[in-house]
Amino acid sequence: MADSTRDIDDLIDLMARLPGLGPRSARRAVLMLLKKRGQVMAPLAHRMAHVAATARDCLTCGNIGTSDTCAICADPARATGEICVVEDVADLWAMERGRAFKGRYHVLGGTLSPLDDVGPEVLRIPQLAARVADESVTEVILALNATVDGQTTAHYIADALAATGVRITSLAQGVPIGGELDYLDDGTIGAALRARKAF
Amino acid sequence: MADSTRDIDDLIDLMARLPGLGPRSARRAVLMLLKKRGQVMAPLAHRMAHVAATARDCLTCGNIGTSDTCAICADPARATGEICVVEDVADLWAMERGRAFKGRYHVLGGTLSPLDDVGPEVLRIPQLAARVADESVTEVILALNATVDGQTTAHYIADALAATGVRITSLAQGVPIGGELDYLDDGTIGAALRARKAF
Repeated sequence: MADSTRDIDDLIDLMARLPGLGPRSARRAVLMLLKKRGQVMAPLAHRMAHVAATARDCLTCGNIGTSDTCAICADPARATGEICVVEDVADLWAMERGRAFKGRYHVLGGTLSPLDDVGPEVLRIPQLAARVADESVTEVILALNATVDGQTTAHYIADALAATGVRITSLAQGVPIGGELDYLDDGTIGAALRARKAF
Repeated sequence: MADSTRDIDDLIDLMARLPGLGPRSARRAVLMLLKKRGQVMAPLAHRMAHVAATARDCLTCGNIGTSDTCAICADPARATGEICVVEDVADLWAMERGRAFKGRYHVLGGTLSPLDDVGPEVLRIPQLAARVADESVTEVILALNATVDGQTTAHYIADALAATGVRITSLAQGVPIGGELDYLDDGTIGAALRARKAF
């Protein structure tokens, strides 16, 4: 491609860095944008620049919003005394899509990993302990991923908060809604059996 | 999600309209952008706004560039007298990646489709005939897709240009480089056999 299309090539290269897009799909996406540059490309660029300029991490919970206190932390209706601890903002979004949790969050930003120098301070665990002390918290729900790293981190947090006497819970494990037993791993079936309940 | 995150939700909705991205992958892409808002998101938004503002269709060939005459049409080294006719800018990009063609292009923007009101004027076929008359063109290479619509359009163009006496050719059909016979369709094998050549 020649010199005056360098801008388009650069845009394709930048788009190809997005997760889920490779060089080929980035080209297709940019070509679609070029064909709809008035209706789609300009609004998308404008919105992206606006979000890039205004987005910031909530100083309280670590969620990403557009002010120093995110919309969830700022909502008085959500001061229920329950804090849901998640690994990542993506997990917070997933919890919100579930529409089941009415309290506030604490985003760790990862899991403990001493080999990578990810200790409790990096994961904002001291701040969680401070919130438990300050915000009249009644329950901490550990909604970490059901992985080895996630569960190790959950145990560490439970130990760190044990002295506060706050109630500590974790998400139930079992058969997903719509799940078929034949496709579930053995660990999930075992957990669902151990946690069986009266029908 | 609450009000102040509406901007982020809107951005996800816009991203989900890109080909190759759905709601879930758009969320992942936006979250990655939010986490790298300085290094990736701001440059991407800036570049996209710049391209949206400067991109335009080449008045001669229909390619997308940043001026009324695209870089290929403006390049005197490419005035070889050969015009390659393609359906779409994506096909032009594919030809350019092949680095085999040194002439100029004519982008139709689709194939003939009377039922959809896509006639010769919409596909800029009269402009192609005018270029053949004006630009001392020696050869028109029909590089349309090997589909029924593509080949119908190719035959229409060949008929429309027949009176000019210009040489009209089309891309060779045969076994792709690296192609395995067992995976090729019958039509391709037949075409490759009919066009066989001395070894």
